[in-house]
Formats: sequence, structure tokens, C-alpha cells
Amino acid sequence: MNRTEPLQRTTHKTKRRPGRPAAGIDGDARERLLTAATELFAAEGVAATSFAAIAKRAGLTPAMMHYYFKDRGHLLDCVVEEKIAPLIASVWSPVEPGATAQELIRGIVERLVAGIERNPWVPSTWMREVLNEGGLLRSRVLRRLPFDKVRILSGAVARAQKKGEIQAGADPVLIVFSMLGLVMLHLATAPFFAEAFHRREPSPQVIGRHITALLLEGLKPSGKKTRKRK
Amino acid sequence: MNRTEPLQRTTHKTKRRPGRPAAGIDGDARERLLTAATELFAAEGVAATSFAAIAKRAGLTPAMMHYYFKDRGHLLDCVVEEKIAPLIASVWSPVEPGATAQELIRGIVERLVAGIERNPWVPSTWMREVLNEGGLLRSRVLRRLPFDKVRILSGAVARAQKKGEIQAGADPVLIVFSMLGLVMLHLATAPFFAEAFHRREPSPQVIGRHITALLLEGLKPSGKKTRKRK
Repeated sequence: MNRTEPLQRTTHKTKRRPGRPAAGIDGDARERLLTAATELFAAEGVAATSFAAIAKRAGLTPAMMHYYFKDRGHLLDCVVEEKIAPLIASVWSPVEPGATAQELIRGIVERLVAGIERNPWVPSTWMREVLNEGGLLRSRVLRRLPFDKVRILSGAVARAQKKGEIQAGADPVLIVFSMLGLVMLHLATAPFFAEAFHRREPSPQVIGRHITALLLEGLKPSGKKTRKRK
Repeated sequence: MNRTEPLQRTTHKTKRRPGRPAAGIDGDARERLLTAATELFAAEGVAATSFAAIAKRAGLTPAMMHYYFKDRGHLLDCVVEEKIAPLIASVWSPVEPGATAQELIRGIVERLVAGIERNPWVPSTWMREVLNEGGLLRSRVLRRLPFDKVRILSGAVARAQKKGEIQAGADPVLIVFSMLGLVMLHLATAPFFAEAFHRREPSPQVIGRHITALLLEGLKPSGKKTRKRK
């Protein structure tokens, strides 16, 4: 890998403000470093990932890492701000009051599956660094959660339960965790699933359909014309 | 903490075979070390946990760790053999052909919730070290999975789907992952849930009921007398 080229670029040193990415010609190197960081976080975890390892994976020098990222805290801020927050926004922004719980759930599952297809490093990082106690992205991500949007969904579920339109056994707030968790879990464990059961790795579309069916229908009798379709 | 007492015990050094725990008076120290190991694995991950840290948490010396466990591979064998395999067996052993999918799912969720109550270190370790690619317990646990029992469950689901007794949208093998994943995920993230939503941490019983309701009923209309109960 050509390590001299990006180093030459740093000679055009521009004034940086913390948290604001250097733009223009430096943007590519910085983006490569951020991408390498997210890939290593997914594979090894944040604690086990050094600046040197990130630089090496990006084909750049540790000096470049330190040029763009003051310290690990700053790097984690940038990952959350530039990689995780936009994904969260893409999933939750379209959630608005007025839609039914079923419509909301279908949309969220679909957008989250699509978002993770674009960012395959997310599920294992989310499980390890956000959900785990002691996870190193936990407090940063916690501040970014769209609680107003979550309330719209759990409110829609609770209202439908009160009207008897959906069954009352599931908890309307826990259901949000069930939904997100199922998507993360199935996408993160698709290789494990394939390995364990000697099956082809299920595609994100297959996983999305499975989860939507499970959440919206459960395993109860279909009650539709499917019964005697033959 | 009294560090001299266990050291004195090691003077009664008995012949050990790898994988076979030393019995008798040594058993207590060994058990404390294994427990400390599982707690640290859950909090920090296997890679970040040293023999010295395990000994310290157990109030014993690193020499004691090396007395009982040849190396990390041996320690991981013992954790899987003595801590994880019995839990897997307690969950899956009662699964026998002839039961309905619904009965099987109810039983598995109930036993898994109970098993994790007794072993609260399991969910985060499972997510980090088994499901993650590169997880350090993955291949050891993979060999222990009760595929014959999993097949009984997925067979029961598939048969019920064919007879139209349960809806056909969910995948009968993926459903096994959904079920186990929901239990692990909700139990592992109960503190995160409480923190994020400023709610009381849901009890394992509440979580179990939520998951069973979700899996068996989904969010579809209840269709029962609940609709006009008032």
C-alpha cells in the first residue's frame, strides 16, 4: 500500500476545529481512517483497537490518525456523530404520529435492514459497545436515541392494544427493543446461523420478512385463506 | 481478603488431568476462580481478561489460576464444559418430539429465562463471544449446540405451518434464533432499557411473558373476547 501519498497531503495543513472534519483533499484519508476504525471496532471491539491498527488497516501512518483525531474520545465522538447518528436518523425520521403501529414497524424494520446493509459493521458494534454494560459507545449513543420517535411508536402500540386491535400481551416499550434487537441480532448472526445449520446465509431481505412476519403475526394461526389453499 | 489460606491448600497437590477439575478441598477455590472468570468475561470480554485479573477478583493468587488452569484454552474449555453446557442442557433436554411448537417455545423461553437468572453473566458473553465473528468461545460452543433438539423444534414449527395451524411467514429455523436472541437480548439489555427510558428494570418474569406473547401471538388483533371486555 502506498503510504507516502497521504503523508504528502498533510503538508497542506488546514486549521481544524475538534469534531469538524477537515474538508477537501484531506477528506478521503480521514474517511478511510473512520471506515477502518468502524471495521476494527466490529471485529475486535473498541478497547482492543489501537490508533496504530486503524492507521495500518487504512494504509496510512499513525501520525495521520493523530492528525485527524485528538484522542480516542474524539475518534469515538466522530464515529457516533458521522456514522451512527445518520443511520439512527435514517431509520427514525419518517416516524410521525398518525400512522398505525403496524405501518410504523414495517417501515422501521425495512429501513434498519437497509441501513445495516450499507453499514455491516453496525450490529456487532451495537451489541458489544452500546447494549453491553461498560460498552464504550454506550453513553455517547444513549444521548442520540430519538426518544420522541420511540414514544410515537410505543404510543401507537399501546393505543392499538387498548382498542383491542392488537393483542395486549406484549409490552409497548419493550417491543421497540424486541424489534431493533431482532434486526441487529439476525443480521449480526447470519454467518453464525449459516455455519451452525449448514444453510446458506439468509439475505437481509429474508431476515427482514421473517422479523416483520414474527412481530406482526407471531406464531398464531393465520386465520386467513391460507388454511385450505391447496 | 485472605490470600494465604488457599495457597496453603495447594500444598496438598493432587494429580490433575486436563479438563477434570480437582475435587475435594481444592474445589472451592477452583469454583471461585471459574465464577470470577465468567463475571470478568461478561464485563470485559475474554480477550481483555488476564489470569491475574481473574485471580485478583477471586481473592486468590495468579499461581492458583495456573495451578488449576493450564492456559487460556484450558480455562475456556472448563467454562464451556462446566458453566455453559449444563445451561444449554437444562434448556433443551426436555424438548422431545410430539409436543406442539407452542408448548416447546413456552418451555424453552421459561427455562432459558430461569437459567440466565441463575447465570446473569451469560447473555453478554453469549452475544460477544459466541455470536460475534471472532468470538473466543464460538467454536467451543458451536460443538455443544443441541442440533437434534433444535431440529425437533423447527420441525414442529414447519409441520404446524403446513397444516395452517400457525402462520407461514416466519422461517422455522430462523425462529429458533429469534427466540433465543430475544431472551438473551432483553435480559442483557434490561439495565440499558431502564437507563434509556427511565423505567424500572423489567424483571425476568416480565421479559419472559413479553417474549412468549410476542412469539406466539405477535402484534395481530387478539380476536378473543378481550375486544369488548369493558
